[in-house]
Amino acid sequence: MTESNTVWYVDAEAIENIAVGAGILGTGGGGNPYVGKLMVRRCLDEGAVIPVVSLDAVTDDATAVSVGGMGAPTVSVEKIQRGDEPIVALRALEQYAGRRADYLVPWEIGGTNSTRPLVQSAYSGLPVVDADSMGRAFPELQMCTFSIYGVPCTPAAIADVRHDVALFPKTATTKLLEKYARAVTIEMGGSTGFAFPLMSGAELKRTAIPGTLTLAKEIGRVVREARQTLTDPVAALLSVSGGEVLFRGKITSVHRTMTRGFAKGEIELEGMEDDRGDNLLIEFQNENLVARRGETVIASVPDLISIVDTNTAEPVTTEVLRYGLRVAVVGIPAPQLLRTTRALEVVGPRAFGFNFDYEPLAGEYGAGRIAQTSLS
Amino acid sequence: MTESNTVWYVDAEAIENIAVGAGILGTGGGGNPYVGKLMVRRCLDEGAVIPVVSLDAVTDDATAVSVGGMGAPTVSVEKIQRGDEPIVALRALEQYAGRRADYLVPWEIGGTNSTRPLVQSAYSGLPVVDADSMGRAFPELQMCTFSIYGVPCTPAAIADVRHDVALFPKTATTKLLEKYARAVTIEMGGSTGFAFPLMSGAELKRTAIPGTLTLAKEIGRVVREARQTLTDPVAALLSVSGGEVLFRGKITSVHRTMTRGFAKGEIELEGMEDDRGDNLLIEFQNENLVARRGETVIASVPDLISIVDTNTAEPVTTEVLRYGLRVAVVGIPAPQLLRTTRALEVVGPRAFGFNFDYEPLAGEYGAGRIAQTSLS
Repeated sequence: MTESNTVWYVDAEAIENIAVGAGILGTGGGGNPYVGKLMVRRCLDEGAVIPVVSLDAVTDDATAVSVGGMGAPTVSVEKIQRGDEPIVALRALEQYAGRRADYLVPWEIGGTNSTRPLVQSAYSGLPVVDADSMGRAFPELQMCTFSIYGVPCTPAAIADVRHDVALFPKTATTKLLEKYARAVTIEMGGSTGFAFPLMSGAELKRTAIPGTLTLAKEIGRVVREARQTLTDPVAALLSVSGGEVLFRGKITSVHRTMTRGFAKGEIELEGMEDDRGDNLLIEFQNENLVARRGETVIASVPDLISIVDTNTAEPVTTEVLRYGLRVAVVGIPAPQLLRTTRALEVVGPRAFGFNFDYEPLAGEYGAGRIAQTSLS
Repeated sequence: MTESNTVWYVDAEAIENIAVGAGILGTGGGGNPYVGKLMVRRCLDEGAVIPVVSLDAVTDDATAVSVGGMGAPTVSVEKIQRGDEPIVALRALEQYAGRRADYLVPWEIGGTNSTRPLVQSAYSGLPVVDADSMGRAFPELQMCTFSIYGVPCTPAAIADVRHDVALFPKTATTKLLEKYARAVTIEMGGSTGFAFPLMSGAELKRTAIPGTLTLAKEIGRVVREARQTLTDPVAALLSVSGGEVLFRGKITSVHRTMTRGFAKGEIELEGMEDDRGDNLLIEFQNENLVARRGETVIASVPDLISIVDTNTAEPVTTEVLRYGLRVAVVGIPAPQLLRTTRALEVVGPRAFGFNFDYEPLAGEYGAGRIAQTSLS
C-alpha cells in the first residue's frame, strides 16, 4: 500500500463529493449532510487540516472513539447544532475513562454523521478513520457492527447545545443505551452529539466496515462528474456502489409522523418508464426499511434502499420527501458484515418488526469502488 | 449539646415511628414508606447499625451526598426496588468526582425517601444526617433547598435495578437535570436510585432543613401512642408537627392520571362533622399541592397538605386514595427555608402552574418538636 492510500486529506472537492455520496448511502435518513458540509467548508476556509487514515493503518493499541449526532433528521434540519457537541461528549468520555482518543471514527457513513466526525477532527486535531459501523445509516444505536460484534457500548457520553452532558458508565446492552440516550436527547431538544464506543485499534479493525468515507467520496465524485458530462448520474452511482435501480416513478403520497424521536412513515410511488402501471410502497423509520412492489417485498434492511432524483441522482432524504418528485429507487447490497446471522438479528427485517426474512439483493456493496479507484 | 443529641441509632421502634411520620410529611406523595420500613427492619435483624447524626455535628470539610429514589409513587408500590440502587449511583458518583462520601443525607423526609437512606446506610456503613432538603416531599428534583440555595446539582448519578448507571457531570440547572434524569428513569422502568448533590459539610449545613428525621420519628411516636391510649391521634400529630385540621370529610371522587412519570389528579371530599355541607378539592402532582374549599384556596404549596385517616391519623397516600375513606385534611406550615422569596419561585403555587400567590398557614413547622423532645 502506498502512502497516498494510507492517508488522504479532506479538501473542498472531497467534502462536496462526500456530502452527495453520504446522502445516497443514508437511504433517506441519517440527516441531511448539507449542514455538515457547510461546517467542514468553514473549517477548511479557516485552515483546518482533516486527515483521513485507512482502517488497516490504525495500530492495535491505539484508542478510537466513534462520534456523531443523535436525533431525528427532521429535527436536525430545523435546529442546527452548535457543532462541537460530539467533542464535548468525547472530552467527558475521555475524562471518565482516563484514556485519550487517538482517532475519531464515523458512526454511520449515511447522512450527517458522515461529515460530523470531519468537523470534530478540525476542532480536535484528531485524524478520522476511513470506516464506519453501518456502511449506511440506521435509526438506532445498537444497529452497528461495533455492538453486533461485541465491542462494549459503554462508557458512552452525549452532550447538548448548552454543553450539558450525560454519561452512561455501564448499561447492560446497547439497546438500553439507545433508550436512555434517546430519552435524554429528546429532553435536550431533540438533538445531541455523542461519543462512544471507546475502543482499541484492534477492536475497531475487527468490527468496522472499511473504506466507507472513500466510498462516499467516490460515489459523489462519479455522480457529480456525470451531471457535468450529461451522462446518467444514476448509472454512475451504481457503477461505484454496486446494486441496481429497483423502481422509477413519481411520489404520490407521504405519510410521516414523529414517534418517540423518530420520523416514521410510508412513501407511495407510481411507476414511470418501464415501471408504468406498477406501484411501490416504502416504509421508513428515519431510514428506508422495506420496499414493496404490490404485495412483494423487493428489498429490505439491511440492504440499502435509496431514493434519488431521476435526472441528477441527488438523494431525496426523509425530511424533504414530497408529492410529485420523480425519482429512482436504488437498491444497494449491504456490506457483508451486516449480512451475517448475528447481524440480521439486529438489523434484519424482523428486528424492525416485520414478519419476513431477509432476501439479499444480488451484488456486492461498493463493488465498483476498486475499479474506480484504480482509474483515478 | 449532649452526646445523645448528636447521634442516635435507628432501632425497630424508631423505624416504625419514622414510617408513620414520613407518611404524613409526604403529603400524599413521596411513595409509601412501608417497603422501606421492611427493608430497614430486615437490615436491623441482620445486625446493621444505622447511626443518625445531627446536622450541626457535621464538619465543614466533610463530604455529604443525598441519596434516594426517583419515580412516581404509584410505580414504587408495584415495582419494588432491588434496594441498593442509590448506593450503586453513589459509588459511580464518588468514582467520577474522585471523592468519598462521609455522610448520607435524605433528599426528602416525606415518604419512601425518608427510609431509603437508612437502608443505604446499612449497606454502606455511612451515617445518616438528621436533615433533608424539603422538610416534606416534592415531585421534582429542583424543588429542594440544596438547589434553591445554590449547591450545584451536578455531578449526579442514577442507577436502576440492573445496576445500569447514568451520570450527569454538568447540567445548566437542576430543572434540566430533573428532565434528563426523569426521562432515563422512565426508560429504566419507572424507578431508579439517585445520588446527588455531592457537597461539603459547610454547604449542607447552610442549606438543609435540620432535624427532620427526628421530627418524622416524633410525629410517628405520638400518633402511635395516641392510638394505643385511645386519645386523638390527629391532635397528637398536630401537637408535634404544628398546623391545624383544614377539613374533615369523606373522599367522594379521585381522578388520577400518569403523565410523564408523575401521578397527577384531583381529590374531591364531602364535609363531615363541623364541615358538613362543604366540599374540598385537592389537586396533586405526586404530592398534594392545593386545597380549595369552594372557590377559596385554603392551603397551598409549599405548606404541607396531608390527608390522614380520621380515627388513626394513618397517612392516606396518593396511590391508595379511594372513594369513601373518612379523612382529616391536615395543614402543616412549611419550614422557613421554603417560605423565602427565593424558595417560592421554585416551590410556590406559581411554580406548579397555579395563578395565585402563596398565603402562608399560621404557625411553625415542627412547632411541638422541642417540647415533645424535652418530655421524652
